Amino acid sequence: MSTHQLHLTILGCYAGAPGAYKNTTSQVLNIRNHLFLIDCGEGTQVALRRNKIKFSSIHHIFISHLHGDHFFGLMGVINTFSLLKRTKPLTIYGPVGIKEIVLLQLKLTETYTSYPLHFSELDSKTPTVIFENDKLTVTTIPLKHRIYANGFLFQEKIGERKLDINTCLNLEIDKVYYSKIKQGGDVTLDNGTVIKNSEITFDPAPAKSYAFCSDTRYKESIIPQIKGVTVLYHESTFLESHAHLCKPTGHSTAAQAAQIASKAAVEHLILGHFSTRYGDLSLFIKEAAPYFKNVDIAEDGKTFVF
Amino acid sequence: MSTHQLHLTILGCYAGAPGAYKNTTSQVLNIRNHLFLIDCGEGTQVALRRNKIKFSSIHHIFISHLHGDHFFGLMGVINTFSLLKRTKPLTIYGPVGIKEIVLLQLKLTETYTSYPLHFSELDSKTPTVIFENDKLTVTTIPLKHRIYANGFLFQEKIGERKLDINTCLNLEIDKVYYSKIKQGGDVTLDNGTVIKNSEITFDPAPAKSYAFCSDTRYKESIIPQIKGVTVLYHESTFLESHAHLCKPTGHSTAAQAAQIASKAAVEHLILGHFSTRYGDLSLFIKEAAPYFKNVDIAEDGKTFVF
Repeated sequence: MSTHQLHLTILGCYAGAPGAYKNTTSQVLNIRNHLFLIDCGEGTQVALRRNKIKFSSIHHIFISHLHGDHFFGLMGVINTFSLLKRTKPLTIYGPVGIKEIVLLQLKLTETYTSYPLHFSELDSKTPTVIFENDKLTVTTIPLKHRIYANGFLFQEKIGERKLDINTCLNLEIDKVYYSKIKQGGDVTLDNGTVIKNSEITFDPAPAKSYAFCSDTRYKESIIPQIKGVTVLYHESTFLESHAHLCKPTGHSTAAQAAQIASKAAVEHLILGHFSTRYGDLSLFIKEAAPYFKNVDIAEDGKTFVF
Repeated sequence: MSTHQLHLTILGCYAGAPGAYKNTTSQVLNIRNHLFLIDCGEGTQVALRRNKIKFSSIHHIFISHLHGDHFFGLMGVINTFSLLKRTKPLTIYGPVGIKEIVLLQLKLTETYTSYPLHFSELDSKTPTVIFENDKLTVTTIPLKHRIYANGFLFQEKIGERKLDINTCLNLEIDKVYYSKIKQGGDVTLDNGTVIKNSEITFDPAPAKSYAFCSDTRYKESIIPQIKGVTVLYHESTFLESHAHLCKPTGHSTAAQAAQIASKAAVEHLILGHFSTRYGDLSLFIKEAAPYFKNVDIAEDGKTFVF
């Protein structure tokens, strides 16, 4: 896969209890050749199999909050990785308590993992970088739900500038300078001429970003953090007809999600975490469209490419 | 449904990790109008929905042992019962530790049940009656697995004798004696003649019984307890080709399950808990048949009637 594409596969996009053919929240983000598993509703491992996602490529699992429809499938994933004799480390990022839940069950089942299992327990109420390497960062997005909940912002780093190889050859620039040039440096030729970096490089591919925001009430304070992201996945549990349920349950409507998308000027909005009470999901698009045009709805088993 | 039929619906019959279309252990026994849920592999609630089993009719859940493929779906069932605003009590029977696992997750998810949730934690290593009413009993069947495990024996009680109403009328027996007669009593007529109970009653319907034995190694000491049961479900994780794995993993082959069925002189044998490594399940029948003829294999979504 090109490192310039961001692939998002929806394993489950429904709220509360799974239906006979409706999965609760789980998704896989493929970004810069990392496969990040986000939330683990019951049946996640089965959905991974059905979507032919390679278990051994998953090294990081992010759990937004400790409601069952977002983590009851986690133990199954952890257990099956052992049955498959995994040896590579796995790190789980989630609210404080997730470690106790997992370790208690490992202890009582007397089945220990075949691989190192790490936990990064979260309790911060401000955005916090929880993963970083040379290609990307993952930062928490504090949400407003009934219990402690985080969204996650996955951000590519801007890569090196691309060498204009023909110009470099014409100018007879020595290869030893190429690394410096890709990092933005100018070059002074033997005759003293200074070649500006912009004359011998192209801009790098734009850095893409994905913001996962579920579950949450309408929360304007997240807007500065998700400003201009490539894709925003924002929960929209309800349609306007049930807007009165948002406050007591800590959820949003499609219109509210679209207003966040608009105010944050994101490129694309994906709606998800639908209450299973609704039959016609196109109504979510209809209610979001007046506020934000570039909107799509999640669907179990669907892969979005950006 | 007739109270003389025993219905067994297989929700899942595979071992270890679920496959894309293979569920781990769970089944529903309908006996004397009780719906007993036995084991709860991940995805049990979805399988219940797909098999159109009414959630509100389940009042008792029996967990054989604390391996994930037998209980990772329990939290989902407990949670969904609350989302459905259940009010009737639910009792969970399972190894010591099951209560701690459930209560920790309820505490951390801050979602308490809408109904009374009771636990009957098991640690006895001898057969123990864990449920009894006027129609039936449920008794543990201590098994031999890698960790503490019980099978469960569901036994109907023999009902009252059936009145031969025509004979009673001909003999002008007063109705006040009917109750005594149904319980097996003789009757003395006004003229002093003693009428033997057998002359005025028919035998009651035979008491049926179901023995669930999974997971376990070949264990002859269970034979006296399951002698002559109507149906034995015995695990057969392996075929002969993998018989060497039985001892280290605490499982049985199809041939071993059939030998137990034969020695216990049960009426029917159902094989289940198949390793997902096998493609052709008819081989399990083939390997069992030399030892026990009346054998069938479990199948996700299949209902057996006895």
